[in-house]
Amino acid sequence: MSAYASLTVQFGRISAMSNAIGILQWDSDTMMPKGAAASRAESLALLRVMQHEMAVDPRLSDWLEAAGGDGTLGTWEQANLREMRRVFTAQTALPADLVEASSKAISTCEMAWRQARADSDFPALLPYLAEVLRLQREAGAAKGEKLGLSPYDALLNDYEPGGRSEKIDALFDDLAAFLPGFTQEALAVQARRPTPAPLAGPFAIEAQRGLGQRMMTALGYDFDRGRLDVSTHPFCGGADHDVRITTRYDEADFSKALMGVIHETGHALYEQGRPAAFMSQPVGQARGMVLHESQSLLMEMQACRSPEFLGFAAPLMREAFGASGPDWEAEALWRRYTRVERGFIRVDADEVTYPAHVILRYRLEKALIADAMPLAELPAAWNAGMQELLGTVPPNDRLGCLQDIHWPSGGWGYFPTYTLGAIAAAQLFDAACRAEPDALPGIARGDFAPLVSWLRTHVHGQGALLDTDELLTRATGRPLDASVFKAHLARRYLAS
Amino acid sequence: MSAYASLTVQFGRISAMSNAIGILQWDSDTMMPKGAAASRAESLALLRVMQHEMAVDPRLSDWLEAAGGDGTLGTWEQANLREMRRVFTAQTALPADLVEASSKAISTCEMAWRQARADSDFPALLPYLAEVLRLQREAGAAKGEKLGLSPYDALLNDYEPGGRSEKIDALFDDLAAFLPGFTQEALAVQARRPTPAPLAGPFAIEAQRGLGQRMMTALGYDFDRGRLDVSTHPFCGGADHDVRITTRYDEADFSKALMGVIHETGHALYEQGRPAAFMSQPVGQARGMVLHESQSLLMEMQACRSPEFLGFAAPLMREAFGASGPDWEAEALWRRYTRVERGFIRVDADEVTYPAHVILRYRLEKALIADAMPLAELPAAWNAGMQELLGTVPPNDRLGCLQDIHWPSGGWGYFPTYTLGAIAAAQLFDAACRAEPDALPGIARGDFAPLVSWLRTHVHGQGALLDTDELLTRATGRPLDASVFKAHLARRYLAS
Repeated sequence: MSAYASLTVQFGRISAMSNAIGILQWDSDTMMPKGAAASRAESLALLRVMQHEMAVDPRLSDWLEAAGGDGTLGTWEQANLREMRRVFTAQTALPADLVEASSKAISTCEMAWRQARADSDFPALLPYLAEVLRLQREAGAAKGEKLGLSPYDALLNDYEPGGRSEKIDALFDDLAAFLPGFTQEALAVQARRPTPAPLAGPFAIEAQRGLGQRMMTALGYDFDRGRLDVSTHPFCGGADHDVRITTRYDEADFSKALMGVIHETGHALYEQGRPAAFMSQPVGQARGMVLHESQSLLMEMQACRSPEFLGFAAPLMREAFGASGPDWEAEALWRRYTRVERGFIRVDADEVTYPAHVILRYRLEKALIADAMPLAELPAAWNAGMQELLGTVPPNDRLGCLQDIHWPSGGWGYFPTYTLGAIAAAQLFDAACRAEPDALPGIARGDFAPLVSWLRTHVHGQGALLDTDELLTRATGRPLDASVFKAHLARRYLAS
Repeated sequence: MSAYASLTVQFGRISAMSNAIGILQWDSDTMMPKGAAASRAESLALLRVMQHEMAVDPRLSDWLEAAGGDGTLGTWEQANLREMRRVFTAQTALPADLVEASSKAISTCEMAWRQARADSDFPALLPYLAEVLRLQREAGAAKGEKLGLSPYDALLNDYEPGGRSEKIDALFDDLAAFLPGFTQEALAVQARRPTPAPLAGPFAIEAQRGLGQRMMTALGYDFDRGRLDVSTHPFCGGADHDVRITTRYDEADFSKALMGVIHETGHALYEQGRPAAFMSQPVGQARGMVLHESQSLLMEMQACRSPEFLGFAAPLMREAFGASGPDWEAEALWRRYTRVERGFIRVDADEVTYPAHVILRYRLEKALIADAMPLAELPAAWNAGMQELLGTVPPNDRLGCLQDIHWPSGGWGYFPTYTLGAIAAAQLFDAACRAEPDALPGIARGDFAPLVSWLRTHVHGQGALLDTDELLTRATGRPLDASVFKAHLARRYLAS
């Protein structure tokens, strides 16, 4: 067997293990009875150790050296080899004792965070978070050394290969200058209209589930290769040919589950549309978290908060809940789904204020990783940033710097991908609508095929063949760039 | 670490892997979308290979030799070591190429069987079944050589450690002599009463599910460590602290799902009641398939087809389905649940005729493994046996020798455990009712605690500490013995 063929076999096995882990993780979050938690954690830990052993198998390094030298590999195979090298470098970059120490620190810190958040007690979290931060810095330094990157960029690189803080700084500084004034303007426009009262529920869960499934089908989700279930925190997970999404139902408000389902369906369409021939290979994976988030936000924010979509969805909503009246007309629903509000909580934010939440976290985590700010000052710096970016300060740390699990759970370098994804979503949706004149009219009649077919070709089916900017340039004519996003916001929120 | 401690760690890892496989298998049968089948098969095959590698790890053989020599192990630890040795011998008895050839032959034969059964075409199955049989013989011979057993006993030993065909012959010959006349008598008694018409449905699936869950709770099933779901073929599976059962609902007949749920709950109670301190160790496993089947049949046949149980269940059934009238009185329902009928199909048989189906299969598979009968003669021998044991001959092989998957799927040596389990069930239920005078009155009021508490002590909590006859002797005063089973049948079916 050639070195390249040996590599594909080994990465195929690693993928088979990922699929097993993915389904067990899904089960833990959706089906598992609570008494099984400890035993499940043991099984998952064992499989993860075994997967890591496969991923750092010393034979890989020989094969990676030998493969591709004879020039017989095609474009995709060459890219696959490049991705294999990238993955191998990432897997072998950290010494085993650092991985173990980090994993332990994270477990402890997550528990401390749950309590500290409930108590709104940052000092109680501080020592645990300091330990996680110290180990993240160390991991960033170790990876950075191998990759020739700063520690922060090395951490970011795990979520967004090729992502660089220099570029993000420019994008975010521009947005940070634009958003406060824009938000004020949007709120002023909005203030000229009456504030809608909440839609009168309750909304039966079965009806919500049916509506969600109807939307998933309209969006092009393939139920032969996935499922919709319930979990406390919605996610898209599962396995290669088994992309499962979850949601959470609130009988008093169906919109959260509905928009959540659409968001996760966006992620799932990316996963279901990855290149079939390379499904279990590194080049067949999603490019990174920026494009992943772009696909969920393209569906949730660009396509499904459009007047076109609500024209299609409004009758289905009325039918699902046996509702009628002026509040249930497409126009009224569209107003409702495009409300802007200055809030404290990132996950509840609308698309106008969301970037401010992200920019705040990005700036803080970059400073903390660079040791340019003492961790103890985080609450004060948080509140100052909220004042600057959103013009509002949370009354306590529970609604402030304690709200997200990302830092306690070691997800440093992840936050910027949310807003970079929103920017990419605007850019891709705009390009799709220009390239496929039937995309928006299709959405208006509940036919997403023209849009999704374009996304399949230009995003999903590309896997990890290109880097994010290259993919965006081929698909939209330019690399990641906030101008389309800003134009989208202006069109949607400043028109009265 | 001592050799014994090293063994417990390694067997703990093997168990963690079993738990992962158990949940993935459960998912395949209950949740998995059809498009994921091939990818899931790959993941499961990988985990099974890895588990096998752990189970034949060469260090085990050194540890097994070194462990226990210093006399410091307690009774349970000694028994654990004995079970570890037994498992290791079983795992290492077969050469890898035989395992692989057998696994391939089984896959092919199972597919051929599905078609052959649909077509009622035994000759079409013959070559595939011959190959499976040949490899089963070879496996039996290889294991038998290691264990000093005949090939058939070596195969049987996989399902029922310590089981011997010599003893089974004696038990089954006795039953084979007893049953034909008894069945005739029971049918004569039954003929004096009117035949009940089917209960009028449909029976809503939600109501059936609710009733099943109510019964599971009454029986003592712990929903914090398990679930009830739906699958094509009902089973009890999952993981150590996560014992999941399944059923299948028929809107026209709720009794199948109800009795099926009770049957699987019997299995599940055994699994949930295994000794906590040895849950992941060989000595903490269920003893074998005879006792396992005894626990499902004790619940389904002994406890829950009793007049006491139906006195408790009848009002719940009426309530679940909004039913009333004389057909729904406890006495009428009891008559219905104790109908005897000479049929062709084993899985549909009542407890009087079931043993005849099993004895037939046992005699045939023993002869086939011993090469004492050509496989081509199976259909004729089957029909002759049906005539002898049940007094009825199936009109075709679909309703005859093609009905079960066991032989095509390599389950040779399994069949006798069904009827040995029924015998043990009668013996254990009788002993429980004598030792716990409140057992039957408890069932009459829906309180299974007195019965289950006795079973926990005398069966479930014993794990694999004792062999089956030893356990039965301690629990009931005698080894496996059909006299209580026969007395039970006489009491239930000859009283008019």
